[in-house]
Amino acid sequence: MKAEIIAVGSELLTHERQDTNSLFISEKLFTLGVKVQLKTIAGDDRKLLCDVLRQALARSELIFLTGGLGPTEDDLTRDAVAEVLGRPLVFDGKVLDGIASKFRASGMSMPEINRRQAFRFEDGDVYDNPNGTAPGLHVQDRGRHVFLLPGPPREMRPMLENHLLPYLRKLLPPTRILHRRLKITGLSESRVDSIAAPLYRGYPEIATTILAAPGEILLDFFAQGLGENEANAKLDELVGTVREALGVAIYSCAETLEEVVGRLLVEQAKTVAVAESCTGGSIGERLTRVAGSSRYFVGGVISYSNELKQSLAQVPVRLLEQHGAVSAEVAEAMAAGVRKSCGASIGLAVTGIAGPGGGTVEKPVGLVFIGLADENASRAERFQFRGDREIIRLRTTQTALDVLRRKLLQAPD
Amino acid sequence: MKAEIIAVGSELLTHERQDTNSLFISEKLFTLGVKVQLKTIAGDDRKLLCDVLRQALARSELIFLTGGLGPTEDDLTRDAVAEVLGRPLVFDGKVLDGIASKFRASGMSMPEINRRQAFRFEDGDVYDNPNGTAPGLHVQDRGRHVFLLPGPPREMRPMLENHLLPYLRKLLPPTRILHRRLKITGLSESRVDSIAAPLYRGYPEIATTILAAPGEILLDFFAQGLGENEANAKLDELVGTVREALGVAIYSCAETLEEVVGRLLVEQAKTVAVAESCTGGSIGERLTRVAGSSRYFVGGVISYSNELKQSLAQVPVRLLEQHGAVSAEVAEAMAAGVRKSCGASIGLAVTGIAGPGGGTVEKPVGLVFIGLADENASRAERFQFRGDREIIRLRTTQTALDVLRRKLLQAPD
Repeated sequence: MKAEIIAVGSELLTHERQDTNSLFISEKLFTLGVKVQLKTIAGDDRKLLCDVLRQALARSELIFLTGGLGPTEDDLTRDAVAEVLGRPLVFDGKVLDGIASKFRASGMSMPEINRRQAFRFEDGDVYDNPNGTAPGLHVQDRGRHVFLLPGPPREMRPMLENHLLPYLRKLLPPTRILHRRLKITGLSESRVDSIAAPLYRGYPEIATTILAAPGEILLDFFAQGLGENEANAKLDELVGTVREALGVAIYSCAETLEEVVGRLLVEQAKTVAVAESCTGGSIGERLTRVAGSSRYFVGGVISYSNELKQSLAQVPVRLLEQHGAVSAEVAEAMAAGVRKSCGASIGLAVTGIAGPGGGTVEKPVGLVFIGLADENASRAERFQFRGDREIIRLRTTQTALDVLRRKLLQAPD
Repeated sequence: MKAEIIAVGSELLTHERQDTNSLFISEKLFTLGVKVQLKTIAGDDRKLLCDVLRQALARSELIFLTGGLGPTEDDLTRDAVAEVLGRPLVFDGKVLDGIASKFRASGMSMPEINRRQAFRFEDGDVYDNPNGTAPGLHVQDRGRHVFLLPGPPREMRPMLENHLLPYLRKLLPPTRILHRRLKITGLSESRVDSIAAPLYRGYPEIATTILAAPGEILLDFFAQGLGENEANAKLDELVGTVREALGVAIYSCAETLEEVVGRLLVEQAKTVAVAESCTGGSIGERLTRVAGSSRYFVGGVISYSNELKQSLAQVPVRLLEQHGAVSAEVAEAMAAGVRKSCGASIGLAVTGIAGPGGGTVEKPVGLVFIGLADENASRAERFQFRGDREIIRLRTTQTALDVLRRKLLQAPD
């Protein structure tokens, strides 16, 4: 069955409010094997809401409406559904009693306008709302199911979990969507796809999606409609082939990059210290997002000025003079210096030009050197990143963590 | 004119990704007097996307599509618009050259599939994308405008601001929505509202909204339907009253907190160095978001371990033994130590327990000390923040920057 979600409320069309109910609904439906094929966010406009609803009914079997069930005149969801389905709403005295008793429990008398919330569809379900006054409604029509849910998440969520999901579990064939994920860094989206596509195209029964974020690509594989054993076997086969093709560029199937680095450091009983220039502290910030990172992250220096590159990061002044602050030699020296001064097993250092100013023909904006030092040696890699200041800093941080990860994996560069 | 936004991408239909572009677009359109009447989120499904687009064209004059402009086969937005409008895409060699040169600049050769991004509408506009490879597109059709924008926010936002908004400003009748903003930190949302509400309620012709983010409250004032002079006068009057009532808690009307701090440091010809423990580098990261921050930010130390609090941040060992690492005394000593070792006018230090572990009855999770040192003295303030590790670190960073701002303003604590 195909599902659609319609979030109702003019406030959801402003920049200040975001529909988040649909995320919760999508997640729950996913576990039942139901795919949400479209989401619509509509204001408190009856004609438009009716149009949207008609289109949804023509496409999908399960329609979830959230919001617009309040007591005021701009709460139009009930009326819109009644109009589009041509099914009148009927007054339900028992529902009204329930609403009135909620008011009484708070020592208030029920305002007359709340009567609007006591209407229901003649042969449909009514779902109690322990956290508010608007009951949920359900109506069936020619093989379509329309669910009307309150807008406040704390009212919508328990109603979905306690009433709709048990109902849908009975309604729908038992199913399981199986899922695998690969997280990749150090390659562009198009590079990943050009490697992976020839492989996943061989598995038409598995849906593959590719998703890019700065410095990171996610490959997701979904198997549905196969027996569980077959689905697992096919997924393992495809994921195994993609793993082989992408190799060390895959950094995890679930963990964040900083978690992977942290786990490897703990496993190898190593510690790391950072010397940051153009990232200004971002690498330390990323590493310390992980609870318990004090086991392997000792700290480091933010050597933003050249003076601090000398004093704190212990870079010899002649290197700065000969090669400039943004150079492989200085990155190497920073890594070695911070490793020593912080007493860590590994020193990780970055120096670069984040822009927008400070670039030259020889050393353009986006030029970054990442240095890495251990007890044996110190070396640096050169990178040229594109983008604005923010994205250059993001990519630098991500790449620095990846350089550390590859070092810990003893991977070839 | 009525607007609609269609966000394209199957990932936006899962619980893991949320369309946020539409919030940014709605906000910008609002300032032009354009109301978004519907938002749709569609997957990478050509037939459905075409249906949605047809319906949007029947209702709205301005259609904004985000996403689906990538180089891969599931990027369908260009093709869907071409199909629905019956307007063929044409290959543009100049656009291709632009894309290829972006790859060359990173030392890579352009994968063949990126050719897909070099197609445009014959008589439509092409918008350069400095932060990615997908150019934006614009096509006009029987009084309708369709804008095709890249999905990643950092690509979409500058394109909207630099190309679409200037275009729309010319296209649309001049509007009369005037806007003022106040940015506030150090007070809770309910505290801000209890102070501001009695004031803004006196101005029914001005719409006031209050929006909370971790460590920050935004108060927005909108005047519409008044003459420009009257609107400006009323807004200035209200904003002036609110400014007076909230005082130093208002840190700006536009600048970020790190920009305000940077400007004050430049004005006073002062420099700052940081010593970070529980924030792991976040304060340095925030300060260095600002281009040109090397004028006033020299750097600092990430003294995550106790050893580094001694060696790098120059905290006397007896203070650590007597008071513990999370204490006012250590925060003070860190601030004084880093100021001296980095040769800065001001030292700013944080030490705290970000959690989830490490808390005790005496020193619970969320306890943070912020130290500040100048040439005369060093002092520390105690804070108790609520929330998870991420929120506690965000609030700590924000509050540390605010402590520095208030110091620079010579404001009473």
